[in-house]
Amino acid sequence: EVLSEHTTRRKVSHEIELEEEDLKEICDEFKRIIARDGKEFPQDPYRQLEMAVEAVFLSWDNPRAKTYRRLNDIPEDLGTAVNVQMMVFGNRGERSGSGVGFTRNPATGEKHLYGEYLPQAQGEEVVAGTRTPLPVSQMKQQFPEIHAQLLDISERLEKLRRDMQDFEFTLEDGHLYMLQTRDGKRTGPAAVQIALDMLEEGLITPLEAILRVEADQLDQLLHPVFKDDDAVEIARGLPASPGAAVGKVVFSADDAEHWAGRGEKVILARPETTPDDIHGMEAAVAILTSRGGMTSHAAVVARGMGKCSVVGCESLRIDPKNKTIEWDGNRLNEGDVLSLDGTTGRVMLGAVEMVDTGGNRELLDRFMTLVGQVEAMGVRANADRPDQASIARDFGAIGIGLCRTEHMFFEEDRLPLMQQMILSDSLEKREEALAKLKKFQRKDFEGILEAMDGLPVTIRLLDPPLHEFLPPHENQVEKIQRLRQKGADQAEIRRQEEILKRIESLHEANPMLGHRGCRLGITYPEITRMQTQAIIEAACQLKKAGKNPVPEIMVPLVSMKGELANQAEVVRKTADEILAKQGVDLDYLVGTMIELPRACLVADELAEISEFFSFGTNDLTQTTFGFSRDDAVKFLGAYEKEKILAKDPFQTLDQSGVGQLVAMAVERGRQARGDIKVGICGEHGGDPASIEFCHGQKLDYVSCSPFRVPGARLASAHCSIREQSQSAGGDVPFRDR
Amino acid sequence: EVLSEHTTRRKVSHEIELEEEDLKEICDEFKRIIARDGKEFPQDPYRQLEMAVEAVFLSWDNPRAKTYRRLNDIPEDLGTAVNVQMMVFGNRGERSGSGVGFTRNPATGEKHLYGEYLPQAQGEEVVAGTRTPLPVSQMKQQFPEIHAQLLDISERLEKLRRDMQDFEFTLEDGHLYMLQTRDGKRTGPAAVQIALDMLEEGLITPLEAILRVEADQLDQLLHPVFKDDDAVEIARGLPASPGAAVGKVVFSADDAEHWAGRGEKVILARPETTPDDIHGMEAAVAILTSRGGMTSHAAVVARGMGKCSVVGCESLRIDPKNKTIEWDGNRLNEGDVLSLDGTTGRVMLGAVEMVDTGGNRELLDRFMTLVGQVEAMGVRANADRPDQASIARDFGAIGIGLCRTEHMFFEEDRLPLMQQMILSDSLEKREEALAKLKKFQRKDFEGILEAMDGLPVTIRLLDPPLHEFLPPHENQVEKIQRLRQKGADQAEIRRQEEILKRIESLHEANPMLGHRGCRLGITYPEITRMQTQAIIEAACQLKKAGKNPVPEIMVPLVSMKGELANQAEVVRKTADEILAKQGVDLDYLVGTMIELPRACLVADELAEISEFFSFGTNDLTQTTFGFSRDDAVKFLGAYEKEKILAKDPFQTLDQSGVGQLVAMAVERGRQARGDIKVGICGEHGGDPASIEFCHGQKLDYVSCSPFRVPGARLASAHCSIREQSQSAGGDVPFRDR
Repeated sequence: EVLSEHTTRRKVSHEIELEEEDLKEICDEFKRIIARDGKEFPQDPYRQLEMAVEAVFLSWDNPRAKTYRRLNDIPEDLGTAVNVQMMVFGNRGERSGSGVGFTRNPATGEKHLYGEYLPQAQGEEVVAGTRTPLPVSQMKQQFPEIHAQLLDISERLEKLRRDMQDFEFTLEDGHLYMLQTRDGKRTGPAAVQIALDMLEEGLITPLEAILRVEADQLDQLLHPVFKDDDAVEIARGLPASPGAAVGKVVFSADDAEHWAGRGEKVILARPETTPDDIHGMEAAVAILTSRGGMTSHAAVVARGMGKCSVVGCESLRIDPKNKTIEWDGNRLNEGDVLSLDGTTGRVMLGAVEMVDTGGNRELLDRFMTLVGQVEAMGVRANADRPDQASIARDFGAIGIGLCRTEHMFFEEDRLPLMQQMILSDSLEKREEALAKLKKFQRKDFEGILEAMDGLPVTIRLLDPPLHEFLPPHENQVEKIQRLRQKGADQAEIRRQEEILKRIESLHEANPMLGHRGCRLGITYPEITRMQTQAIIEAACQLKKAGKNPVPEIMVPLVSMKGELANQAEVVRKTADEILAKQGVDLDYLVGTMIELPRACLVADELAEISEFFSFGTNDLTQTTFGFSRDDAVKFLGAYEKEKILAKDPFQTLDQSGVGQLVAMAVERGRQARGDIKVGICGEHGGDPASIEFCHGQKLDYVSCSPFRVPGARLASAHCSIREQSQSAGGDVPFRDR
Repeated sequence: EVLSEHTTRRKVSHEIELEEEDLKEICDEFKRIIARDGKEFPQDPYRQLEMAVEAVFLSWDNPRAKTYRRLNDIPEDLGTAVNVQMMVFGNRGERSGSGVGFTRNPATGEKHLYGEYLPQAQGEEVVAGTRTPLPVSQMKQQFPEIHAQLLDISERLEKLRRDMQDFEFTLEDGHLYMLQTRDGKRTGPAAVQIALDMLEEGLITPLEAILRVEADQLDQLLHPVFKDDDAVEIARGLPASPGAAVGKVVFSADDAEHWAGRGEKVILARPETTPDDIHGMEAAVAILTSRGGMTSHAAVVARGMGKCSVVGCESLRIDPKNKTIEWDGNRLNEGDVLSLDGTTGRVMLGAVEMVDTGGNRELLDRFMTLVGQVEAMGVRANADRPDQASIARDFGAIGIGLCRTEHMFFEEDRLPLMQQMILSDSLEKREEALAKLKKFQRKDFEGILEAMDGLPVTIRLLDPPLHEFLPPHENQVEKIQRLRQKGADQAEIRRQEEILKRIESLHEANPMLGHRGCRLGITYPEITRMQTQAIIEAACQLKKAGKNPVPEIMVPLVSMKGELANQAEVVRKTADEILAKQGVDLDYLVGTMIELPRACLVADELAEISEFFSFGTNDLTQTTFGFSRDDAVKFLGAYEKEKILAKDPFQTLDQSGVGQLVAMAVERGRQARGDIKVGICGEHGGDPASIEFCHGQKLDYVSCSPFRVPGARLASAHCSIREQSQSAGGDVPFRDR
């Protein structure tokens, strides 16, 4: 281990040129280290070799190796091997050298020998960065036979290994030695290109081609990526929404819109975003926040928009009042340029160079056509608007798994109506406001049901606490102060004070566990009625126009059978009245979100009423762990450092805890209703490891944000292929074309 | 059913004197109602009788009866009986009359015939309130033989039924007829008195005496009660802490202290209380809040103090700024008198007359001595201070199940040190502040361990989020504004701004699910170290003084094995160092609170580390349901109205949901560690129905606030007696005396 640390240190330091003296010093130090352990450095080369072999075997149990295995799910009992080779020397004069090569271009996937070599050098020096290597293609002039030999070997290696190879070679006095070969790492676009090419070349089967690409790699085909990593990183946040973006930093949604309006590319930086910021988020090329987790407002909305976002960058102090970002005594001002990498969470100074991958859509589509031929668990999308629904459908979504109706209420022309509803002190006034809102909702639902014509659309009834639709307390207090100072109309001041009072009365200690979800529908059944009317009327309209809408109405945040019974009755009664009146025959489902531990425990009771379950694993993770996703960033860092948590449970479903509840709910739900439709609509729906769990539970679908649909479909196909190849010896049914 | 509704209506209306005509009208109406059902009212009396009998049998299935059975756990298949009696008339002249009687006084339990009678009247009229009845004792003059006969019958009835009887009688022309008898309802003090008297009289066995008193009834022996119910009720809140109190309303803790200092009895009214209000709560005779549930700060603290409290009175607008309470257009000002009933939740205007039950302590002690002889699940107390611990011990607590260390930090002389710790920006500075706090903590622990000498004391490590120890954001902003206006010292303003910044950085969206519990100990291990040192050093001190301290150190809010492993290591290492250094031999336990769903799911893993489990069912209920106890009052009203929830899950453990998780954790915990000690320390520990559940799970103990200990011990004894009498034919082992 000591030795390997030394080696690493040498590799990392790019500056050092090693001299004879240095080498002697290093040798002496090694000897001292070994002497410290009470052993003398043996002069017998066989004993040296034995010790080296032993060291490799012992390294299997060092803490780093253990952590690596844990993180990469490598079994503890696999063991390691040691390969003892004859030494060859690349530094034996002019006809010597060393190099590394790839059988295809690992960045683009193009089919040509790609690599670097260094004359008169050992392999170590090629990668150490102390001398600049030459492209392998230059060997063609200097050593044409060797180059030809390399080309030939390259082709043979690929045929043998049936994958793109990353190999090392040494030229000793004009003689070529291949030192090692392994499957090469590659970018997302290269992975897809190589898989499709090799399929065409007949080198691999369609199923193998599908297995050659990881779900995460598809992201790179949808988003631009940064060219290299020389940038000055000022902070690292959570990689909330993939992509790369460069822009001038602004600090308010209005500024973002304003700057974007005059053609600037802007990055919107906020401590955290709220629904009030949506227009700014749309105008910006990327979003940066200092608070919030992977499922915070900024993260969810950005993913929905397919827009680069880095959140929870706690080391940055984003100050919207003074329009500055401060860190470690440094400061950025409005208009300064930043680069954000939403795939890694890196925040970098200035404009880092990007590679545009726009041309990859055609490549993606070809690959997804292949993927689509595997019988696998379906993928739906979480989408709130017709345009998002269309994107998702283009990516192969088989429905909408989660349409959040409240996002519709936040739009500029609706928010005042929503507020009017909330401020109403009687049922009549509330219904008046709701009637106006209904017109908008009906139109929204018509749009999304039409975009998904023939495919199911799961529409969730109003979920967030009502205070989210009112201004923050502080802002309202300030507003009233301003009005007073201006000597504004007394009636207006009183009206604003009424709003303040309502904000105060709606205040909650823990809004996540407060008056929201079905609890709203139970206290205000008129809201449930209005939403049901809007959905069913929209569906009737489309039916009459010859379309085939398939709405699934979902009651959120249920913990007891009585809650669901109450809301399901309102929904079914309202819907059936409209259908009877309009004489339309429509199949619609009523179901519930499973997002609280108690719902999992009584899933059998819920299934008596519910025609489908959709797991809201974000909230289920929050309540099962007792973690607020917005606040957990404050301690999850320490948890990672202390190795308490291997993976962020908001990114990858916690199988040993939350997973137990999901499994229990699936089993009990199916016991009570054999044909219950079960899916998952939390952000986990886009995570490959979580998808594997869902596949194991035989869920009907997973649902994720539109831009994660291709990755999720690929992950789902992988599960099917692996399962089938385990059970049936590799023969996986393809869908009819 | 129709008939019985009519009867009820007549009984309810106290004003009506029935005339011949009225009677005829009623008869006609009955006939019409029966005719509406297509039947003619039969003139044959046998058919009439048959129909009446049939009506009673059918009433078994009416919705009210079904609800009643559901609420009172009466089996559906029990069925009802009909008793047909000869009619006797109490209105047949001067030697006729009707009355009701109790064989003993149902208010005090004293052994004498107690009742009322009305000459020349039917039984109905005695209870209808239309005429004022006479005390039964007056019959002695008028009808001495009848009175003697009643005394004789009364004694025979008691011997036959072996309980105090509530009977009805009619005197028809000098002849006494007994119409019915049943076990009489009685107050708490009466129940205890009668049970003890009958035991002494040899009428019942000790076990029967114990079963004759309900746990809830014991509360009445510990708190004063209101004499009658004629008061003007202005609101009804949650009955947070039992008792009756009359006092002048004040609106701040300082005012409460000030007014109490000059000898006034005050009721502290606040929208909700915070730790800053403690001194005012101590000074007040009762606490009233408009927000918060049964486990809000006000409720928990008041119960700990054994002080009357009504919380969550949402219909009252308590305005501490203007010092007013407003409701329905009415207003109360500071100093106005209110009466609070903490047993029912009623808030009444003015001073309602009270019955003092102070003399009942001796009665209670006699009864509890009896109860203490039953082998049953033990009861511990939740107590934070030595005086509370002593009260609990006096009431027969076998240990402290929950000692909340943070309550110690809120006291006046410690809070500044706690704040200093929180504001420190380096480990060194934090440790400096912690060292000062340690002195206080050690003294506190010494006190409580000494008070419970020889009995276990479960001490929970710091639990609440740190921002609870800092002033509210609003207050701090105001403070800075004031300092600026006064032109205060710049350094002081900057210091206060630093505090404000820290308050902002500690702000959480959902503090209940935030940076608290073991998450604090993991990010700041120095806090865990300091607390462990204080506990172990205090125990060593006592050990050296010949005492026998039994500390159990509890890690709160654990959801993963890694969290517990981390904290248990800090605790054990710190403790063992001190013990080794001091050369003291001390048995201490390290365990965890089970208060999150995930902890229940992985209880087997936790039990590998944990020597005991203590269920924190308050938080477990919050996370399992996804209900914030502070916010749930906003919708639980609607839930009750819609019959979604039969019982408040924060008062009575939700067996079908939360109970599943508890059972799972108990089972898995015991599988992994056979001798693991398991108890419950949520407020459910004082609720009889929840205690029955805990008994069924064979928990080692339940723990509740000190004043609920007698009731909990009684409930626990009941469980043992019932279980044994079911299995062993009534023979329950008594402890050695």
